[in-house]
Amino acid sequence: MSTTDTQFLEDFAEMSRFGATPGGGVDRQAGTQADHATRKWFGDWLARHGFEETVDDAGNQFGTVELNPGAPYVLVGSHLDSQPLAGRYDGAYGVLAAAYACARVAEEFGAGTQAPAYNLAVVNWFNEEGSRFAPSMMGSSVFTGKMPLESALATTDGGGITVGQALAGGHRRPDGKAPGLASVALYAEIHIEQGRTLEESGTDVGIVHRTWAASKYRVTVDGAQSHTGATRMEDRRDALYGAALVITAARELTAEFEPGLLHTSVSEMNVLPNSPVTVARQVLMNLDLRSPDEDVLARAVALLDKRIIDAAESSRTAIALELTHSWGLVGYQPAGVELGRKSAEHLGFTHADVMTVAGHDSTNLKDAVPTVMLFVPSVEGISHNEAEYTRDDDALRGMELLTEVTRRLARGDLRKENPR
Amino acid sequence: MSTTDTQFLEDFAEMSRFGATPGGGVDRQAGTQADHATRKWFGDWLARHGFEETVDDAGNQFGTVELNPGAPYVLVGSHLDSQPLAGRYDGAYGVLAAAYACARVAEEFGAGTQAPAYNLAVVNWFNEEGSRFAPSMMGSSVFTGKMPLESALATTDGGGITVGQALAGGHRRPDGKAPGLASVALYAEIHIEQGRTLEESGTDVGIVHRTWAASKYRVTVDGAQSHTGATRMEDRRDALYGAALVITAARELTAEFEPGLLHTSVSEMNVLPNSPVTVARQVLMNLDLRSPDEDVLARAVALLDKRIIDAAESSRTAIALELTHSWGLVGYQPAGVELGRKSAEHLGFTHADVMTVAGHDSTNLKDAVPTVMLFVPSVEGISHNEAEYTRDDDALRGMELLTEVTRRLARGDLRKENPR
Repeated sequence: MSTTDTQFLEDFAEMSRFGATPGGGVDRQAGTQADHATRKWFGDWLARHGFEETVDDAGNQFGTVELNPGAPYVLVGSHLDSQPLAGRYDGAYGVLAAAYACARVAEEFGAGTQAPAYNLAVVNWFNEEGSRFAPSMMGSSVFTGKMPLESALATTDGGGITVGQALAGGHRRPDGKAPGLASVALYAEIHIEQGRTLEESGTDVGIVHRTWAASKYRVTVDGAQSHTGATRMEDRRDALYGAALVITAARELTAEFEPGLLHTSVSEMNVLPNSPVTVARQVLMNLDLRSPDEDVLARAVALLDKRIIDAAESSRTAIALELTHSWGLVGYQPAGVELGRKSAEHLGFTHADVMTVAGHDSTNLKDAVPTVMLFVPSVEGISHNEAEYTRDDDALRGMELLTEVTRRLARGDLRKENPR
Repeated sequence: MSTTDTQFLEDFAEMSRFGATPGGGVDRQAGTQADHATRKWFGDWLARHGFEETVDDAGNQFGTVELNPGAPYVLVGSHLDSQPLAGRYDGAYGVLAAAYACARVAEEFGAGTQAPAYNLAVVNWFNEEGSRFAPSMMGSSVFTGKMPLESALATTDGGGITVGQALAGGHRRPDGKAPGLASVALYAEIHIEQGRTLEESGTDVGIVHRTWAASKYRVTVDGAQSHTGATRMEDRRDALYGAALVITAARELTAEFEPGLLHTSVSEMNVLPNSPVTVARQVLMNLDLRSPDEDVLARAVALLDKRIIDAAESSRTAIALELTHSWGLVGYQPAGVELGRKSAEHLGFTHADVMTVAGHDSTNLKDAVPTVMLFVPSVEGISHNEAEYTRDDDALRGMELLTEVTRRLARGDLRKENPR
C-alpha cells in the first residue's frame, strides 16, 4: 500500500471519531457540535495541504487552490453531515477522497510546466441529509439557485433552532471569498453505492448515468380525538389507524411490480396528541416512491390514490397527499459518463453504468454544470445504518478513480469534447 | 333553576377557563402551569366554602370539613388534570360536583342537631390522565398503596422533568395534614360516561357496577436502519411497517367478535430515528385491548399473538409485547351500587347499572374502601376531545345525585347495611 493510501485510511479513521457512536457509526446531523467538530478538523486538513478554506453563506465549506489565476474551478466534493446513528462512509468518504484527489492533481500541476485549464476546489456541502433540517441537499440547492438562501437560513429543527443559528456555532464565518456557481465549470463527486449491484456483480466502480425517478409526499391524516377504551369501534376516527393503512398500502404496492421496479417507504411520522389513552386526531408523515421507470412510478401513484380512498373510508379519516418533491429519470451528461468510463479503463478497473436511487449533491450540480458522479461498492448495500461499510481496497480504488477524473477535468478533457 | 344550580354552572364555566383551548376544550396536563392554576382556583374555592385545603406528598389536593371530630372521612372527588386538547368535563366536572355535594351535606349537618357518622373530604387526585407522566391514576395509586411514592415522584415527562419537580411549582406544599388511606371509610365519585349507552337509552344517570377487563401492552418493533430510497424492498427490515401491521391487526381483531365485545387501540408511538430518508430501526408503542367479557379478551390476545408472528415475518422485524397493566372484570361493592340506585330512585331519576370501560380513580379506591361510582350522560359519547359535552340538566342531576349519595354515606347508610 502506498504512503498516500495508508495516510488516507488513517485520516478517514481519525475523521470518523467525530460523532462516533458505540455501534461503530457516526451521528453528526447538520450544524450539531459533532458536525462543527468534523468541519473544523477538515478545515485544518485543508490548511495543512495548501488549500485556502472558505465558507459561503449557506454553510458550504470550500478548500480552493489556485493553479491558473482567474480560471473557473473544477469543484469536487460531497458532504460531512450524517443521518442520526448513521454510517461513517455516506458523504464523508467522498469529501476526503475529493480532498486527496485535488491535493494530488494540484501537486502534479504545480510540478509541471503547463498550467491546467482550471483551478481546483474541494467542497463539503452543508446539510445534504436533511434529517435535522428539511429538505435534504440544502447547501447545494442554495448554491445552484434552487432554494433561496433566506429560506435555508430560516429553516428550523424540531427544537425551533434555525439553520442560521446552527451555522453561527461553527469555527469559521462566511467572508465573501467562497466560490459561487458562476466560477464553477465542472463538478465531480464520489459516493458509496448504498445499494448492492456493484458488489453482486463484482464490479470495481460505478459510473452514475441516471437518477431514479422519485415522488415524495407529505401525508396528513385527520381523525378525531377520543378515548381509547370507552369509544365504540364504529365511532372512532382513528388517525393512527388511517396512517397504518397508508403505510401497509404503500408497501404492498411494491409487490404489484417486478422486483426492483418500485421502492416505497414511510419513515418519519408525528402523531397527535400521542397519548397512551387518546385516539390520535392527526398523523403527519412522509411518503416516498421511487422507480427506475417513470411509467411504473405514475402507475404506482395512481394505484396508491385508490388505496388511500379505501384507507380513508375504513378509518373514517380524511387523508391528504401533498407532493413536496419529485424528479423524473434524469441523466448525467453523457460526455461526463464517458470520461468516467475512460478513467476507469485507464486504471484497469472494472466498471458499470449504474443508476442512483438516492439523491446526492451531484443531482443538483449536474443541472448547472457538466458533472461526473462515481460510486464504490457498499457491503450488502447497507446504508443509513451504523453497519454501513466499504472495504479499504474499494475505498482506495475510488479515490484513485476520482483523482484520475479530477486530473482529466482539470486539464480540460471535458471542455475539448462536447460537454453536454 | 336554583341559586345553587346557577352558581355551579358559573363556577364550572370559570374553572374551564384554565388551560382553555380555542376549540372549546382544555389542555391542562398534570403539573403544568394550567393544572397549577386550576388547583389554585379550586383551593381558593374550598377556603371560601369552609373547607381546609391540604395537599399530600403525591400531589393529591384535599378539602376537609370536620363534623364529627376524630371520625374517618367520606371522601368524594375526581381529578382536575386533562389529556392534551381535551374536554372540559372529564374529571373536572366530578371534582366540582364533589365540592358542591360536600358543602351542601356539611351545611345540612351543621344546621341539624345530630352529628354525622363521618367527616367529609373532597379530593382532586393528581395525574389521573397519565399523558404527561405515565402511568395514569398516579395520585390515587400512591394513596391506595399500589404505587410507591418514590416511583411516582421520580417519573419523568418527555423533557426529563420529574413529577416531584412539576409538583414543586404548585401553590401549596404538603404539610403532613392531608388525610391518608387509614382515615378514609368510604369513597364516592361522579364522572361523565365517555360512552353513549345512557344517552341512547335516555337514562338520567348510571350506577357503575363493574369495570371492563383490560390488557395493556408495551410493543417494541425492532428492525434495521437503511436508506428509504436505495435499499431493495426485500432487504428492508422496516420497524414502521412492522408497527403498521400490528396496528391494523389489532383493529381488524375487533371484527372477529360481536360489536361492543372488544375495543382495541394503538394511540402512542415513537419512531426511531424518525428521519424522512431513513427506514425506521425501532418503533415503541402502547397497545390496549378491553372487553366486558374476560373470555373474549383472552381469545383476542391469543389471536393477536398469531397475527404478530405474521407481522414480524412479513416485515422481517422482531416484535415483542410486554404486559404493562391488566385487570379483570372487577365489580364495585354491591351495597354501594344499591345505595346509588336507591339515591337515584329517591330523586326520581331514571337509572341503569353500567360498566365503565375507562379506568377512574374509583377503580383504585374501590379496592381499598366501599365505593360508589356514578355516571352522567356524555353527548355522543365523545371524550378526550375538545368537543366533549354534557348537557347542563344532566350535569345538575348528577350533582344532585352525588349530593344524595354523599348524604347517605355521611349519615352511615352503607355502614348499617353490609358494606362489602
